[in-house]
Amino acid sequence: MSAPVKRAQAEDRVDWKKRKAEVKEAQKQRNEAKLIKQLEKQKQQEAAEKAKLKQTQHRKGRAYTVSVALPGSVLDNAQSTELRTYLAGQIARACVVFCVDEIVVFDEQGEDVKSVEGEFKGVGKKGHACIQLARILQYLECPQYLRKWFFPKHQDLQYAGLLNPLDSPHHMRMDDESEYREGIVLDRPTKQGQGSLVNCGMRKDVRIDKQLQSGLRVTVQLNKTQNQENKLYKGVVVPPHVPRTEGGLYWGYTVRLASCLSAVFSESPYEEGYDVTVGTSERGSNVDQTTLSPFKHLLVVFGGLQGLEAVDADQNLDVTDPSALFDLYLNTCPGQGSRTIRTEEAILVSMAALRQKITAAFSDVSSDLLKS
Amino acid sequence: MSAPVKRAQAEDRVDWKKRKAEVKEAQKQRNEAKLIKQLEKQKQQEAAEKAKLKQTQHRKGRAYTVSVALPGSVLDNAQSTELRTYLAGQIARACVVFCVDEIVVFDEQGEDVKSVEGEFKGVGKKGHACIQLARILQYLECPQYLRKWFFPKHQDLQYAGLLNPLDSPHHMRMDDESEYREGIVLDRPTKQGQGSLVNCGMRKDVRIDKQLQSGLRVTVQLNKTQNQENKLYKGVVVPPHVPRTEGGLYWGYTVRLASCLSAVFSESPYEEGYDVTVGTSERGSNVDQTTLSPFKHLLVVFGGLQGLEAVDADQNLDVTDPSALFDLYLNTCPGQGSRTIRTEEAILVSMAALRQKITAAFSDVSSDLLKS
Ligand SMILES: C[S@@+](CC[C@H](N)C(=O)[O-])C[C@H]1O[C@@H](n2cnc3c(N)ncnc32)[C@H](O)[C@@H]1O
Ligand SMILES: C[S@@+](CC[C@H](N)C(=O)[O-])C[C@H]1O[C@@H](n2cnc3c(N)ncnc32)[C@H](O)[C@@H]1O
Repeated sequence: MSAPVKRAQAEDRVDWKKRKAEVKEAQKQRNEAKLIKQLEKQKQQEAAEKAKLKQTQHRKGRAYTVSVALPGSVLDNAQSTELRTYLAGQIARACVVFCVDEIVVFDEQGEDVKSVEGEFKGVGKKGHACIQLARILQYLECPQYLRKWFFPKHQDLQYAGLLNPLDSPHHMRMDDESEYREGIVLDRPTKQGQGSLVNCGMRKDVRIDKQLQSGLRVTVQLNKTQNQENKLYKGVVVPPHVPRTEGGLYWGYTVRLASCLSAVFSESPYEEGYDVTVGTSERGSNVDQTTLSPFKHLLVVFGGLQGLEAVDADQNLDVTDPSALFDLYLNTCPGQGSRTIRTEEAILVSMAALRQKITAAFSDVSSDLLKS
Repeated sequence: MSAPVKRAQAEDRVDWKKRKAEVKEAQKQRNEAKLIKQLEKQKQQEAAEKAKLKQTQHRKGRAYTVSVALPGSVLDNAQSTELRTYLAGQIARACVVFCVDEIVVFDEQGEDVKSVEGEFKGVGKKGHACIQLARILQYLECPQYLRKWFFPKHQDLQYAGLLNPLDSPHHMRMDDESEYREGIVLDRPTKQGQGSLVNCGMRKDVRIDKQLQSGLRVTVQLNKTQNQENKLYKGVVVPPHVPRTEGGLYWGYTVRLASCLSAVFSESPYEEGYDVTVGTSERGSNVDQTTLSPFKHLLVVFGGLQGLEAVDADQNLDVTDPSALFDLYLNTCPGQGSRTIRTEEAILVSMAALRQKITAAFSDVSSDLLKS
C-alpha cells in the first residue's frame, strides 16, 4: 500500500526541480524585460529629442486654425449658480490646453440671438446661457491687465473669483519679455504724424505706428531694440493672427455667437469657411480608425445634454441624421466606462484624441515614420 | 609670427572635435546594434506571450487592469468648499470614463495615513485631503441603492448634491436587467442549508448560495432563469473581478490610500504588482512616440500642484529624477496651450492619449498593422 505513496513523493521531487528551473527562467525573463524596457526608454528619449529639434528648425509659424463649437445650453446643466460659472471656466481651459483659436457658442433651440451686444443680466440660474457662456469665455481670454477696461461691470461676473486662470502665452505679467503683446489704445492727445499710445500691461506705454481709436484692443509687435532711456516703448500694430502665423505662438481664442447650428458653418470668420468639419458623438465612427489630412480651418462641434442628434430642432438644416452635416462624425472615446460623457469632459477627451491626428497631418517626422 | 600658431591651434581644435564626434558616433552605433538585437529577441518573446495570453483570455472578458494614482492634496487647490467636492467628482468621472479599476490616493507629504478608517471630520477647507478624496470617490462608486447602507452619515458628504453621477454600468436602476449586480447581505434569519438574502436594488431580494455576514457588500451573479412566481431571485456570490474578467463589463473602481508615493507601488493589491508604470509630466517624453506592450496591471501616476518633480519629499524613494521611478515618463499633451494643466484635466487628457495605446496593445488589428 505504501508504494504508490512513495511514487507520488518521487513525482513531487521531480516537480520541485522543475519548479526551481521555472522560477529561474522566470527571473531571467524578468531581468531581460527590465533591460529591454530601459533600452526602449532610451530610444524614446532619443526620438523625442530628435523630434523636438526638427520642430524648432521648422519654420515657426502655424498656418492652420482650430475652432470648437458647442451649445450655450450646457450651462443649464450645472447644479448651482457658482458651478455654472465654473463650467464655463472648464470649457475655456479645455480649449486653451488644445490651442483652440475660435470658440463658437450656438443656440440649440435656434432662437434668434445674433450678437453679444444685448443687455446682460448677470449670471442667472437659467436662460441667456449662450450670452453668459460667451461673456465668461471672453472675460477669461482677456489678459488680466486689460480686464479693468473691457469688463468694468463686476455684476456680469459675480463668481469670477472661482475661475481658474487660463495661463496662456498671451497672458503676460508686467516684466515678461515677449515680441507680441495685447494692449488697449489709450485716450491721449497725439500730435500729427505720431502714432497712438497703447497700454500693453508693461511699466511703460507703447507708441505704435498708427493713430487708432481709443478703447480698441490691439495686438502689438514690439520693436526688437528699445531705447531704455525713452519714456515709451515702440511697436507696430499687427493683425491678431500674426503671433500664431509668424511667431508660432498660441494667442488665445475669439468668441462667436451663432443663432443656430447652421450659422456655425455659414458665418465662419474665415473667407473660405471651414475645410474640415468634425461632429462628435458616441454614435460616431471610431476615432482610432481616422486620419486627418492637412487643413486650413478645422471645426469640431459638440452637442449638449441631448447630443448633436437633437439638432433637428434647427429649421435651417433639413436633416435627420446629424452625421450628414459633417465631414467626419467621430466617437472619440470608444469603450467609454460611463454611459454619458459630459460636454466639458468631451472637449478634453476629443481634442486629446484629435491632437495627435492634427500633429501627424502637419508633421514630416510622422510621415517619415509612416513611410519607413 | 603668430599667424601659423593660431592656424595650427584652430586645426587642432577642429580635429579634436571631429575625432570626439567620430568616437561618439561609433559608440552610438555599437550600442544601437546591440539594442536592436536585444529588441528583436524581446519582440519574439512578446509575440509568443501575446499568443499565449490570447488563448487563456476569454473572448468577452478583460484580463488586464488599469490603476490611477494621484495625491489627495489636489483638493487643496479648489477655491471653495463646494468646489472641493466637485473636484473629487471630476476625478471620479474621469476615471470611470476610461474604465479605471483602481484609484490610489497618495499623500504627497509622506504623512502616515494608513487607512480610511480614521474619523472623518466633514469636507473642511484644508487638511485631511487624502481621506476626503478617498471617501467621496468611494461614495460615488457605490451604487445609489446601496448608499443608504454604506454612507449613512450625511455630514461626511455635505455637498454630495453637487456631484455628477458616474453613470457606470454597475449603477443600475431597479428594473434594469443585468447578469451581475452589487448588493448588501441582509440581516435576516436563514435556515440551515439556505444561503443569505441580498438586496441588489431590485423589486425582490436575492437568495445567494452561501451564508455570509450581514452588512457585507457582494457581487452577485443572478441565475439565467428565474421562476417569476417566486418571492425571491436566485444567484451566486462571485469575486468582484468576475463582471470584468468574464463579462467584459466595466465594474467601477476600488479606492486605496497610500501613505507616500513608494507605498503606491509596494502595496499593490495585485500579487505580482504593477508590470507597467507610467509617470505623467509635461517634462516627460512625447506620448505620440510611445507604444505599450500588453500588460497585466498598468499604473498611471499623476502629480499635484507641484508635479511629480516634487516627490523627493518622499523619504522612502531615494531619487531626485522622478522619471527613474517609472517604466515610462510621458508628456501626454505635447504643445499644450496653457502653461499648466490641472491634475483633474490631466487625467482626462492622459487617459485619452493612453486609451488608444492600450487598445492597440491588446488588439490583433494593430499587431497586423505593425507587421505590414
Ligand atoms: C452628454 S453628451 C450627449 C449624449 C447624448 N445624450 C447622446 O446620447 O448622444 C454631450 C456631448 O459630448 C460629446 N460626446 C459624448 N460622448 C462622446 C463620445 N464617445 N465621442 C465623441 N463625443 C462625445 C458629444 O459632442 C455629445 O453631444
Ligand atoms: C499642475 S500639473 C503640475 C505642474 C508642475 N507645476 C510642473 O511644473 O510640473 C499637475 C499634474 O498634471 C499632470 N500633467 C500636467 N501637464 C501634463 C502633460 N503635458 N503631460 C502629462 N501630464 C501632465 C502631471 O501629472 C502633473 O503632475
